[in-house]
Amino acid sequence: MFVFGIDPGLSRCGYCVLEAGAGAPSARALGVLMTDRDRPLPERLAELRREVRALFQEFPPDAVAVEQVFFQVNVRTAMSVGQASGVVMVEAQDMGAQVVQYTPSQVKSAVAGWGGADKSQIQRMVVTLLGLSEPPNPPDAADAAALALCHLAVEPTRRRVAAATREGTR
Amino acid sequence: MFVFGIDPGLSRCGYCVLEAGAGAPSARALGVLMTDRDRPLPERLAELRREVRALFQEFPPDAVAVEQVFFQVNVRTAMSVGQASGVVMVEAQDMGAQVVQYTPSQVKSAVAGWGGADKSQIQRMVVTLLGLSEPPNPPDAADAAALALCHLAVEPTRRRVAAATREGTR
Repeated sequence: MFVFGIDPGLSRCGYCVLEAGAGAPSARALGVLMTDRDRPLPERLAELRREVRALFQEFPPDAVAVEQVFFQVNVRTAMSVGQASGVVMVEAQDMGAQVVQYTPSQVKSAVAGWGGADKSQIQRMVVTLLGLSEPPNPPDAADAAALALCHLAVEPTRRRVAAATREGTR
Repeated sequence: MFVFGIDPGLSRCGYCVLEAGAGAPSARALGVLMTDRDRPLPERLAELRREVRALFQEFPPDAVAVEQVFFQVNVRTAMSVGQASGVVMVEAQDMGAQVVQYTPSQVKSAVAGWGGADKSQIQRMVVTLLGLSEPPNPPDAADAAALALCHLAVEPTRRRVAAATREGTR
């Protein structure tokens, strides 16, 4: 099954496609989608959607983990991240994928063991967990890979807790 | 031709469909799209998209005027407005509509004559310009109507300026 990690953005949208099964997960695709800053916003959103849709068609996602950002330097950035994440999530939902948001500190805790880990620690963990020969380049792709890895790490627990909760309330 | 005004939001998304031609514009549809706060975000975005798409299919838009917000009370709101506006704009772009963003002060200037007009002045102008018997209810729909009216007011000038600029640079 394919699990996507997506670090949404309009100028740079990091993505990583992991194939996960019985063994260790492996990266099938990894990179950054970019849209032209000089084009009008609606065209950029449509371009992002085309590219995301093409990835989803090539690797039909079981789950899509999207970064959830609450703190941004400014509102303009938050709007633009919001626009990109909205477009990505609705496409993922359309594909029938499980769509889950994780905060940066959830990702850091899951991948590096604590919520205060820095970028280089995350990169090293991504390299190790995915058995890569070198850090993902561009770095945005490493963030996306960490998101997908976070989902793989957290999801079994989330399912067990949900099942136990249902059991308890029966 | 149909011109939409859309005041994007995930909990409440105001919309107005104006029919514009040789005479005075008239409102064909006007209201607020709402999504259930208790549902997961991706489902809410997908629901918003379904409803927007249904409106666009019923009234194929020539132009869609979307509110552009730079200042929000908090980043969480900005993210959610961004997500809703991203979904709306990409649908509009897909329909081949002209998609234009207007700031609240552009809307107020165009509809009420000055950028500092308050909500009640805007409501009264919407009632007058569209020949309504009473103010649009809910009020969010009035904001959407003002956006569509702003586009109708501003677009001819924008076109002339663009044409003149092209002429000048030939």
